[in-house]
Amino acid sequence: MGFNFKTILNVLGILLLFNGGFMFFCLPFAFYFHEEWLYIVASGLLTCFTGFILLQLFKKSNNKELKAKDGYLIVTLGWLIMAFSGTLPYILSAGIPNFTDAFFETISGYTTTGASILNDIEALPKALLFWRSLTQWIGGMGIIVLAVAILPLLGIGGMQLFIAESPGIRPDKMKPRIKDTAKRLWLIYLILTMIECVLLVFGGMSFFDAINHSLTTMATGGFSTKQASVAYWDSPYIHYVITVFMFLAGTNFTITYFGIKGKFDKVRENEEFRNYALLVLIATVFVAFFIFIESLYGVEGSFRYAIFQVVSIITTTGYATADYTIWTPGLTILFFLLMFIGGSAGSTAGGIKIIRHTMLLKNSLLELKRQLHPAAVLPVRVNHKAVSPDITYNVLAFIMIYITIFCLGVIVFSMTGEDFDTSVGAVATSLGNIGPGLGTVGPAGTFAHIHPFGKWWLGMIMLMGRLELFTVLMLLSPSFWKRY
Amino acid sequence: MGFNFKTILNVLGILLLFNGGFMFFCLPFAFYFHEEWLYIVASGLLTCFTGFILLQLFKKSNNKELKAKDGYLIVTLGWLIMAFSGTLPYILSAGIPNFTDAFFETISGYTTTGASILNDIEALPKALLFWRSLTQWIGGMGIIVLAVAILPLLGIGGMQLFIAESPGIRPDKMKPRIKDTAKRLWLIYLILTMIECVLLVFGGMSFFDAINHSLTTMATGGFSTKQASVAYWDSPYIHYVITVFMFLAGTNFTITYFGIKGKFDKVRENEEFRNYALLVLIATVFVAFFIFIESLYGVEGSFRYAIFQVVSIITTTGYATADYTIWTPGLTILFFLLMFIGGSAGSTAGGIKIIRHTMLLKNSLLELKRQLHPAAVLPVRVNHKAVSPDITYNVLAFIMIYITIFCLGVIVFSMTGEDFDTSVGAVATSLGNIGPGLGTVGPAGTFAHIHPFGKWWLGMIMLMGRLELFTVLMLLSPSFWKRY
Repeated sequence: MGFNFKTILNVLGILLLFNGGFMFFCLPFAFYFHEEWLYIVASGLLTCFTGFILLQLFKKSNNKELKAKDGYLIVTLGWLIMAFSGTLPYILSAGIPNFTDAFFETISGYTTTGASILNDIEALPKALLFWRSLTQWIGGMGIIVLAVAILPLLGIGGMQLFIAESPGIRPDKMKPRIKDTAKRLWLIYLILTMIECVLLVFGGMSFFDAINHSLTTMATGGFSTKQASVAYWDSPYIHYVITVFMFLAGTNFTITYFGIKGKFDKVRENEEFRNYALLVLIATVFVAFFIFIESLYGVEGSFRYAIFQVVSIITTTGYATADYTIWTPGLTILFFLLMFIGGSAGSTAGGIKIIRHTMLLKNSLLELKRQLHPAAVLPVRVNHKAVSPDITYNVLAFIMIYITIFCLGVIVFSMTGEDFDTSVGAVATSLGNIGPGLGTVGPAGTFAHIHPFGKWWLGMIMLMGRLELFTVLMLLSPSFWKRY
Repeated sequence: MGFNFKTILNVLGILLLFNGGFMFFCLPFAFYFHEEWLYIVASGLLTCFTGFILLQLFKKSNNKELKAKDGYLIVTLGWLIMAFSGTLPYILSAGIPNFTDAFFETISGYTTTGASILNDIEALPKALLFWRSLTQWIGGMGIIVLAVAILPLLGIGGMQLFIAESPGIRPDKMKPRIKDTAKRLWLIYLILTMIECVLLVFGGMSFFDAINHSLTTMATGGFSTKQASVAYWDSPYIHYVITVFMFLAGTNFTITYFGIKGKFDKVRENEEFRNYALLVLIATVFVAFFIFIESLYGVEGSFRYAIFQVVSIITTTGYATADYTIWTPGLTILFFLLMFIGGSAGSTAGGIKIIRHTMLLKNSLLELKRQLHPAAVLPVRVNHKAVSPDITYNVLAFIMIYITIFCLGVIVFSMTGEDFDTSVGAVATSLGNIGPGLGTVGPAGTFAHIHPFGKWWLGMIMLMGRLELFTVLMLLSPSFWKRY
């Protein structure tokens, strides 16, 4: 009983067709801005053709069911093949001719990280910039399927508990529900992207900049069409609009759906959302206070710059309107720690996520109680429901593995010769799929100068972070490859 | 049913008597070096007298048994009262007239941390330096009682599993066993201290320096009589002797006992000891390789400087023969991460400890297996025995709380204006009871310039780390103070 390779390769073929198809969306921009367009057609056709060949060679075998093991392979290989094929427009246009750099940019795109090797974004063709933003938006779509459909089936993270509207769905009833849920969430994703675009145009952004920023906001990606990121626009309106949409992109889309349907009690009752909003509020007030007493900006400005950077880091988007590494040292550390928060489960945000931190905190407090009353059985409760010890265990293990990967990541990465701040910042921001780090890779820097080995290493870390660790780690475990 | 305050205050009285008595041990050195000795007598008498008063006022009430809650209070207040009374020699001799500084030095002593505010150690009276070393040795004695006798009774950390020679002791049979075990371990502690002293004198150290370094080695404390720490002696022999004894001080004393008794199979079978030795070996080879290619020292020198700093940090001793922060940046990060290891349970070392890391790692790997085989029950096994889920849970919670305290510690500490490296280094080294950190508090620096608030904050963090977190945190939980 081995792997179902036929179906795996069949799915990869579909993904390539899909990715190649998306490349053609860049054409209108090439025509409108009178840019070269041949590389787009070539990339699109090449990608689609490869996908077509795979589909012809490997028909889906209906009589063989997909196992969890196949699922892990599909997810990891799927993300990798998207990133590899996504380098074509960069390479064929010679916008990013270096393969390592091109791959770094695409894996940073599809994982919705937003770390960039570009030192002069405005010099690239507009159509290519659109492709860059699109990779993040596609990655965001992928994450929604992953969170809603794939991870729960693989039994990872017990996320189904926090995402599904009502628990206790029987597995046989799950599939149609999942399709419905995924469609609904994609619709929300699409509609919010369009609304943000309209609002940004309304605020004076060009349509091109607006569509790009909408795509990368909703994906919590953070690629910008400007080297200065959102700081390029000195408009409070634009800053606030993007802040609101970053916040929405980091919110569980099911909660947003309830909000749209007017079921505000369901929104208010959700513990993860409450803690998410509370954390943003507390961190904002804290940061605003310190930048206000440093007299960097006035009252409104302090609040605006504080909430923008806080929401940008917590939601793992990574836009910048200011460089937090030049604020007081204490704030640099705070932002570094915020990199380990992550948005809500069931959003496009990366990182550890609020729900896991909530459970961790509750479990730690309960542990103190358990010491005082050893006989009492004290399960962690979320949204008034007791969480099974299995899931609590899994969440604790997740956070431990996250920290372990961070430490190993830093040890290996630092061997490329980068200093302390840069090393811990680069690995933390990659693992959390955020974008800017500390030191030379802070909000004002780029990843251009990183050693090629470091770029591949960070790329793999981005992938691990994006796929909730287990998916990728599983492939590294010997028992995964054992035939049994 | 409140607290048993009478017995608590009675125990504190005994501790004060004991601490005051120890102060008189400084007298011979004052006489020998023709120094002032009045402050020693005054400190000793004052401390003993306070203890005596407490003993007179609060008789132990035999008809009321001690509860776990009383235990927590005794341990935390006990350590605090030792530190407060221990400041007397510093203040009365005017060696450290500033109370904040004196308290920092004593809490760093009794918690066997070794962080110091002294910028010119050699300028202090020798008798006072002896007192400084003695505080660490007393702290080390306290830790042995804590680990062997108190924590298991309080049910903390399931450490009894890893310390007791044979599991499954019935509670009623525990008390006499504990007394025996504690006595035996103290004897090992005392004998090893004396052997090290003899070996150091044999290597050319003065008796005064030898006795001081033996006291602070075996306590994994790290206070030195020289500003340059062990680097003052340019003798491979002295470096190796201290390395070996640091390693022994970080070894579970029960394992050392087996080693002395010649039961080497018991030593070899112990998983924590194996992993401890393995980790030291791997980290040493790694570090030696990098400092060798930097051509800082020859082959032997690279090995010697590597193993000394590695053992010093892993065992949370904190001596230095070189400044790791000026080696390649990657090594700084490695040493920073080693601060989170800690020695063995049942030793005088602080930190998270190898046994917890072993369980964490095993549990993380098992979690991957659990994903693939959801139906299988896979408990963590240590020394071929399945560990109960309760204990695994507790260990995971411990590490989480450790990291949480580290993060909160850094956020608050950094508000004193210290930079990134200094802040994370100072908090990590305090929480792990090590001594040197990074940045301005690295092996070549001191804590003298830290803001007074920062010094008190770090002192509290040292105490929390030393008392295995729960003991102190428990006092901060509202349900602890609830009458029930």
